[in-house]
Amino acid sequence: MTVAGFTRYPPFIDDLARSESGRLLHAELGRRWPETTDQLTATARYALLPAGKLLRPMMTLHAAEAVGGSPRDVLAAALGTEYLHVATLVHDDIIDADTLRRGRPAVPVAFGIPGAIVAGDHLIFTAFRAIVDGGAAVPPGHVVAALTALAEAGQDLCRGQSIEAGLVGDLDAGARWYPEMIRLKTGSLFRAVCQIGALLGGAEPAVASALARYGEHLGVAFQIRDDLLSYVATPEQTGKPATSDLNNGRPTLPLLLAYDAATDTDRVELMAVLHRRGAGPGDVEWVTALLRDLDAVGGAHRRMVEHAERARAELAVLAPSASADVLAGIARWLTSEMA
Amino acid sequence: MTVAGFTRYPPFIDDLARSESGRLLHAELGRRWPETTDQLTATARYALLPAGKLLRPMMTLHAAEAVGGSPRDVLAAALGTEYLHVATLVHDDIIDADTLRRGRPAVPVAFGIPGAIVAGDHLIFTAFRAIVDGGAAVPPGHVVAALTALAEAGQDLCRGQSIEAGLVGDLDAGARWYPEMIRLKTGSLFRAVCQIGALLGGAEPAVASALARYGEHLGVAFQIRDDLLSYVATPEQTGKPATSDLNNGRPTLPLLLAYDAATDTDRVELMAVLHRRGAGPGDVEWVTALLRDLDAVGGAHRRMVEHAERARAELAVLAPSASADVLAGIARWLTSEMA
Repeated sequence: MTVAGFTRYPPFIDDLARSESGRLLHAELGRRWPETTDQLTATARYALLPAGKLLRPMMTLHAAEAVGGSPRDVLAAALGTEYLHVATLVHDDIIDADTLRRGRPAVPVAFGIPGAIVAGDHLIFTAFRAIVDGGAAVPPGHVVAALTALAEAGQDLCRGQSIEAGLVGDLDAGARWYPEMIRLKTGSLFRAVCQIGALLGGAEPAVASALARYGEHLGVAFQIRDDLLSYVATPEQTGKPATSDLNNGRPTLPLLLAYDAATDTDRVELMAVLHRRGAGPGDVEWVTALLRDLDAVGGAHRRMVEHAERARAELAVLAPSASADVLAGIARWLTSEMA
Repeated sequence: MTVAGFTRYPPFIDDLARSESGRLLHAELGRRWPETTDQLTATARYALLPAGKLLRPMMTLHAAEAVGGSPRDVLAAALGTEYLHVATLVHDDIIDADTLRRGRPAVPVAFGIPGAIVAGDHLIFTAFRAIVDGGAAVPPGHVVAALTALAEAGQDLCRGQSIEAGLVGDLDAGARWYPEMIRLKTGSLFRAVCQIGALLGGAEPAVASALARYGEHLGVAFQIRDDLLSYVATPEQTGKPATSDLNNGRPTLPLLLAYDAATDTDRVELMAVLHRRGAGPGDVEWVTALLRDLDAVGGAHRRMVEHAERARAELAVLAPSASADVLAGIARWLTSEMA
């Protein structure tokens, strides 16, 4: 594995943000969240803008277009998936006591914890309203299914967070729960994002289900990619210290695979390193060597590729189109820069 | 005004909790939230059980039955309104740093702030799922309308909380914003609760709108009643100290009406009392005398009765039934014990 050429936001996603659908999303987001003196709206605007790469709404738009829907019709719903995502980030920053987000003071720091709780809640409710607004072109049954998908993703997300909180510092439980945890924590919203696009684009149930599976596998691959970033990219590229996963005691996939393959002696030592959050002398170097010796980064990478490929295989239900190509491209992009 | 016979939970509501629909709700709530070792579910169960008087789900059931629907069909949705209500209480207890709720440690105290944030979020998502589950007997268009009503109520509720936070210690802004603030903070969920019951019970749009207006007026009356409790009931009856509204600087309706009618000198003094949170010697006695002299409690009471009567007038759209009587009875109960 080489890390040459790896960057946090590879060109493909940058190109996508500059595409017509990217410009459409950015313009609509700015229009819907103008500058204001209203405290609640100002807090939400701060959380939402300047926008990131809008990967989730982008997938909703292209899922809708890939099944024959109009991106403009589902624009509101696409932004709704971003509201839910950002709401979880705002609440996460309280939970993890994170003070920085995208290089600025996090919402709880800038607006206080009470303001951050209420703004996060408000964004959740606004996400549901947005799905309704994005469903005007399809029968109400499709809108109910899309709203159900969003509610289930939210439930799953909370459950994933709750499981993750219980795994800190515990590689035994981590190994048992990791696949389910990342499916719930990250796979579920990507699943809903694609399913909502398909449903509001007018897709038949079978096609919507295939796109839901595409999204879930893609989300799982995305989470493993995030786990890998600590090990294959430099802090300048990831924006966080190389040892951050050791610091917060989170059992990432490379650590879990190393734990699984390690000798009993190394297992005990790995647990000890995690318990002292990698703060002992030589801890980071020892873990890095162990991961290399046991091919743990390579193993995690292979799992990521596997999920990305399973995601792409689900797209076989789609007729050829530019949007189908974009969805396939996202799955390819996810892994190609880390080859 | 006499306070004789006033109790926190007057007999009518106790009777309602013991009625068939009350027993149905309590049984279903216990069945859906069993004892568990799962942390997330355990936190939600602790927040939900033992249940309070379940006033909101009760209104959903009776609204559905009053328009010809079956209470059993909408049972899940009725409990959904309780999930949303309890989610806001869990998040409120973090925001207000309240340590007690219903005589027990509040959720953030018992499970920690991170656990309380995630459990509150999870209950919000579960509320939306519950509306879908309670909509199986009606066309999907009704379910979309019910989900929209819940999302809008949630947005309003957050906006009401945000406005209220800005009014602490400010009687000028309080006087301007009070009606809108309580409509958003308390009226909105009561509105949705009745509208959801009507929609999932199969009501025509005009009937659902009338029941929505009934709910909103009832919610506003309910909030004014809560404001009044500090002044007309003893601490044993309300469960909070008589001066709690002064202590937290909240502009309640009796204070606002007194402020409106007071001389300039008394206005300045009232602001000063509120700024020092009623902690000066003789503050509480002085405010009590001012409210009495200016008939501020009586004035607030008249506003409450006015909203309760406007609520009851909306019920004219309903054919006579036991459930229509219960809805009228709730509006009557709200004011009768404080006459």
